[in-house]
Amino acid sequence: MWRIGIVMLLCAGFGLAQDSGDFKPASSNALDAQYPRVDSNSRAQIRFKAPDATKVRVNFWSGEKADMEKQSDGFWTFTTKPMAPGLHYYTVIVDGAEVSDPGSTAYFGGSKWASAVEVPEAGVDYYLPKEVPHGQVREIWYHSSVTGMWRHALVYLPPDYDTAETRYPVLYLQHGGGEDESGWIRQGKANLILDNLIASGSTKPMIIVMANGYASRVGYVVPDLTGKPFGSPEFIKVMQERMGAFEDDMTQALIPFIDKTFRTIPDREHRAMAGLSMGGMQTFQVTFDHLELFSYIGGFSGAANVFLTGNGKMDTKTAFHGAMADPAVFAKRVHLLWIGVGNNEPERMKTGLENLNASLDEGKIQHVFYESAGTDHEWQTWRRDLKDFAPRLFQVPSQPALSAR
Amino acid sequence: MWRIGIVMLLCAGFGLAQDSGDFKPASSNALDAQYPRVDSNSRAQIRFKAPDATKVRVNFWSGEKADMEKQSDGFWTFTTKPMAPGLHYYTVIVDGAEVSDPGSTAYFGGSKWASAVEVPEAGVDYYLPKEVPHGQVREIWYHSSVTGMWRHALVYLPPDYDTAETRYPVLYLQHGGGEDESGWIRQGKANLILDNLIASGSTKPMIIVMANGYASRVGYVVPDLTGKPFGSPEFIKVMQERMGAFEDDMTQALIPFIDKTFRTIPDREHRAMAGLSMGGMQTFQVTFDHLELFSYIGGFSGAANVFLTGNGKMDTKTAFHGAMADPAVFAKRVHLLWIGVGNNEPERMKTGLENLNASLDEGKIQHVFYESAGTDHEWQTWRRDLKDFAPRLFQVPSQPALSAR
Repeated sequence: MWRIGIVMLLCAGFGLAQDSGDFKPASSNALDAQYPRVDSNSRAQIRFKAPDATKVRVNFWSGEKADMEKQSDGFWTFTTKPMAPGLHYYTVIVDGAEVSDPGSTAYFGGSKWASAVEVPEAGVDYYLPKEVPHGQVREIWYHSSVTGMWRHALVYLPPDYDTAETRYPVLYLQHGGGEDESGWIRQGKANLILDNLIASGSTKPMIIVMANGYASRVGYVVPDLTGKPFGSPEFIKVMQERMGAFEDDMTQALIPFIDKTFRTIPDREHRAMAGLSMGGMQTFQVTFDHLELFSYIGGFSGAANVFLTGNGKMDTKTAFHGAMADPAVFAKRVHLLWIGVGNNEPERMKTGLENLNASLDEGKIQHVFYESAGTDHEWQTWRRDLKDFAPRLFQVPSQPALSAR
Repeated sequence: MWRIGIVMLLCAGFGLAQDSGDFKPASSNALDAQYPRVDSNSRAQIRFKAPDATKVRVNFWSGEKADMEKQSDGFWTFTTKPMAPGLHYYTVIVDGAEVSDPGSTAYFGGSKWASAVEVPEAGVDYYLPKEVPHGQVREIWYHSSVTGMWRHALVYLPPDYDTAETRYPVLYLQHGGGEDESGWIRQGKANLILDNLIASGSTKPMIIVMANGYASRVGYVVPDLTGKPFGSPEFIKVMQERMGAFEDDMTQALIPFIDKTFRTIPDREHRAMAGLSMGGMQTFQVTFDHLELFSYIGGFSGAANVFLTGNGKMDTKTAFHGAMADPAVFAKRVHLLWIGVGNNEPERMKTGLENLNASLDEGKIQHVFYESAGTDHEWQTWRRDLKDFAPRLFQVPSQPALSAR
């Protein structure tokens, strides 16, 4: 690839030289890509080459789905309405083929490598690289006797890990459904958020472990679910099997490996778990099944409905093996129960979390309910969640207020 | 994404349950993707959904470029001829739109996130994960006063780095043009290759630093090259500026950062540099300009032509500031000069490297020339290069033989 190489040597940084007007290449673009572009009104311009296509649509997963306009040069273009700040997943549909946009960095979401455009939030820089000490992100491979596989995970270590002799508390932080263990770094900027929070002194230095949320026990074969609808007993059974495999992999393989490999404080008082969406659902199951391992719990836009009864509420007396039956005992045992939602998320998700919050209030269960203003079931919500959640970790004896809503 | 999440929980691992016949999903596929598939004859089956497209082509960069066949279900399919082992980049062209295949993991190559299919090499496992101690790959961010930017790099640390108190030699390993610093891990499997070489005792434990090969000095603006052909004086001038920026960033910002951050042995006797294609070209320039910093040099399918004179040869008496003018002195100074090429690479590249090798032989310059049988300007060549190159590093006083061809 040396000729491409020479051209790359020429082009790197070229973008900056070519900007014009208020639209600028998005920070989420692939190297030197001029499109997508974003303007100061939070509008995005998409440009996609498909000279022989008869129809090209842009598909923002949480936003506009629209036909793109063919230009005489074989490119198709589209300009969005002003969008909420943050990272917006999208794909392009070319004559029926749903594909990613070569102009975008590839982000793993929706179970494939998708495109996204980063819309800056005015005056906000808590997830941007700053002149502060930077932690490192390590890739690790651990062998799991539960799944019988080598599994890949990412581990954030605080800036002083290599110089300080101290041991650190650990946050296990899970991605959403259709994403993978790279999500919290690539999309979420969790490492930069922690670098900045730690530098400001508001957050305890901690290790963050990001595991892959899909697991299958050795030899397990998924039964044929043809004709078995979403939510059917057969469907639920398989889902529970997979959830159980993940729970066992995490508690029997991952956590022991992490405590053996890194300078952790290996007790429940210094171990937290949180996750977004599917990861929130997993967090509730794993932590409430293993309160001997965890004392801080966070559900970011978590799949709450799973835990609500027919009347759309949670019975805090009986839920989770009765762990919350006595609010006082629970408050001593679990130092932080934190749930969050973006107030522009789809009604079903929002209602589920609001009902969960109401149930916890009624049950007098000490917790924090956080609402992210103007954001959807997207990464800006979860970046804000982490920014509010992380400083509350490992602060015992200080206790969070009852429903900070 | 929680509904997707549930479905993912169901589907993870589903692939294994669905295999049939000799074609199996490629190891390079995105999570659970059933296609591309590879059979034991090293043929690949590509399957791509584009119900409304009139023409879909598959484009293997170093192989077949062909029309795909439309099936009644809206999918287009193509089966390749038997291919050489290794990772083959490809894209799909849908009615003129060149895109990646959602079934493939996204690999950064050709200056975009492209698709690739991994064709196993029978009986070969030196780049596969094995039951051996695994090193870690760290992501680092260093500030460069040369470029004025925070720059991202990957660092491989040997398995015993966190337990042994010892210091390690360092190999700086560069990607090819159109690729980025992730290439040697994602495509090249450099971490697994080193894990296996170190476990076998054939290779000294070492740190490997993989930097981004594109750099631009603070404030530098690429001049408008419209109408200036590839290779024109203006073109060369810009290329040299970019090469110089990379050289300064590496020697003035990256190397000091690495020696400050990791337990390195910070001298020329314990510092090597190698790179593939464009990275090979950069390796020759950086190392020969800075023999005070390096004593081991590797060019993997490097862009040799750049260093040859009009007659297609290199004058070893004058080349690189006369560093090789006295072969005996050079042999004492540079412990390893290693060049490699795949014997199925394009003629121009192959000839350039063969001429370079011939020139070094004629000049009695101690070096190693390695040919990878049956492989192209692709990653299998470079994986083999690393497997031959790494064990020769940091072995002084043992010396490589004169042209091991």
